[in-house]
Amino acid sequence: MKKYNVAVLGATGAVGREMIRALEERAFPVERLLPLASARSAGKKISFRGAEAEVREAQPDAFAGMDIVLGAVDSARARELAPHITAAGAVFIDNSSAFRMEPEVPLVVPEINGADALAHKGIIANPNCSTIIAMVALAPIAELSPIKTVVASTYQAVSGAGQEGLTELEEQLSALAKGEPAPAGKVFPCRIAGNVVPYIGKYKENMFTDEEMKMQNEGRRILHLPELRVSCTCVRVPVMRSHSISLSVVTERDVSPEEAMEAISRGAGCAVAPFDGRDFPTPLDSSEQDLVMVGRVRRGLCHENELCLWCCGDQLRKGAAVNAVQIAEILARA
Amino acid sequence: MKKYNVAVLGATGAVGREMIRALEERAFPVERLLPLASARSAGKKISFRGAEAEVREAQPDAFAGMDIVLGAVDSARARELAPHITAAGAVFIDNSSAFRMEPEVPLVVPEINGADALAHKGIIANPNCSTIIAMVALAPIAELSPIKTVVASTYQAVSGAGQEGLTELEEQLSALAKGEPAPAGKVFPCRIAGNVVPYIGKYKENMFTDEEMKMQNEGRRILHLPELRVSCTCVRVPVMRSHSISLSVVTERDVSPEEAMEAISRGAGCAVAPFDGRDFPTPLDSSEQDLVMVGRVRRGLCHENELCLWCCGDQLRKGAAVNAVQIAEILARA
Repeated sequence: MKKYNVAVLGATGAVGREMIRALEERAFPVERLLPLASARSAGKKISFRGAEAEVREAQPDAFAGMDIVLGAVDSARARELAPHITAAGAVFIDNSSAFRMEPEVPLVVPEINGADALAHKGIIANPNCSTIIAMVALAPIAELSPIKTVVASTYQAVSGAGQEGLTELEEQLSALAKGEPAPAGKVFPCRIAGNVVPYIGKYKENMFTDEEMKMQNEGRRILHLPELRVSCTCVRVPVMRSHSISLSVVTERDVSPEEAMEAISRGAGCAVAPFDGRDFPTPLDSSEQDLVMVGRVRRGLCHENELCLWCCGDQLRKGAAVNAVQIAEILARA
Repeated sequence: MKKYNVAVLGATGAVGREMIRALEERAFPVERLLPLASARSAGKKISFRGAEAEVREAQPDAFAGMDIVLGAVDSARARELAPHITAAGAVFIDNSSAFRMEPEVPLVVPEINGADALAHKGIIANPNCSTIIAMVALAPIAELSPIKTVVASTYQAVSGAGQEGLTELEEQLSALAKGEPAPAGKVFPCRIAGNVVPYIGKYKENMFTDEEMKMQNEGRRILHLPELRVSCTCVRVPVMRSHSISLSVVTERDVSPEEAMEAISRGAGCAVAPFDGRDFPTPLDSSEQDLVMVGRVRRGLCHENELCLWCCGDQLRKGAAVNAVQIAEILARA
């Protein structure tokens, strides 16, 4: 079996660490692991399969000899390094939003449109975390009947904003538990402990945020539904890990809740009830594992052919790191 | 000016205490305040306008001489005591769901359908907390054009489940802050600290919960829109106070976000941005005050004539106690 030299770009961040964990847990055929990060983290040791790998600085010349680069850095850095990665002959599986809307870059959720990955020209994009979780839940329904519209409201965990988001919530909770005022945050626009914040990303001209528009724009590419329309509201909640999404979906033909549940239960990467004896999942149920958990499937009351449902998934794992490693697995199988 | 003998039924609970506070803050013309509660609380003292009122047991014969009874007890208890209240000649303003759907009982949000209160036959119902908050935000839009459909996802504070809900979250947060496991809860179906729980109330036959159906069924009566359709998902979040609701609304004719914002800013009981320098409100902004705060108003992307918006309101105050006292004010003015 062929083995691959794999670099993880942003190896010390919340998603990068999960990528290394996923490579290990899923027994990806790694010949050599190269953890790359900023100069600040260079020299740190990261354990991988019982050995230690030294973190190197993510310089443009760092990619020589690599077969696959898993990217967990921001869009600006991804754009800057992408030409160097592809010039070195590696495939760049990028978790940033830099390339997601470029027509020649496949945007892939392996359970849904895995075959798209094979048409890559050196870069494959990993979708937005909430989008991955919602689409894994919706794809089995879309197979029964094309989806026309989705109204989505998210309940997004703080670790979606990286390690800094986690730390910000932890510090605020700790202060409040001592009866002290919560320290002002840097990551979120206002206090997140004991609060919910309906603003993630930046406003676009239509007054949806860029984060909200991803559900429609990336959803279209993943589901191969170019006319899909999504009204999304992204909300940060004081949860450490796992995003949840409340969905109202209108399909072209009628799909009963029973049909939908049956399809979801057969769907790749999905799970339906019971969850710890309950018939709905919560973020705690779905944390630290790779399935998108779905519950509350019922006929909507607003529109013909409307279904309402609720889903939860670990946005650091299936919503980011695991999805990227699954894409690498497609390449390894090809 | 006429003064009223006012009893508060359930005076020691989360909503009852807010009712007494609202009577005081709003300078309702109280001749005598009678706090009523269970036998367990009888004898406790409650301060009101600098004096102390002794809590009495809520026996059927407790209402003699009362003009108005504000009810903050559960539906079963409200049904049991209602005949005794009306037989004593008092008007029963009931915060439970016992009478909300009875055609001869007005269901009133004073800013919206205050005149309905005057047609009472001894009982006036206070709507569900999330419903009040959503309807205060939606009524100015409904005045511009009738609302056809609403897709709502709620972010409901733990104090919506009363003092026990607050205590349950506080105890869980306190244990987690010490590095101990969160104690199992009694009020919520699973851990609420660091989690969100998409199940409030009990399932109806259509697999919406009774809590979720209130938004449609009570909304129809409040807005005088008997055909209104609402797909609601009610979710508990680890917030102490103030409910938030993400809304997608379809109106009969087109309403621009600018028109909607202008109407909401003029609307009774509403506020629009800025909130602490931001253009969206959070539960912390809207706690301990009486306005429903509205933000994120924008054109939806799914349907013709769709608006998306976000609102927050203190569910113990405007969502319960203050709304009930405002109804009493209508009676006092009549």
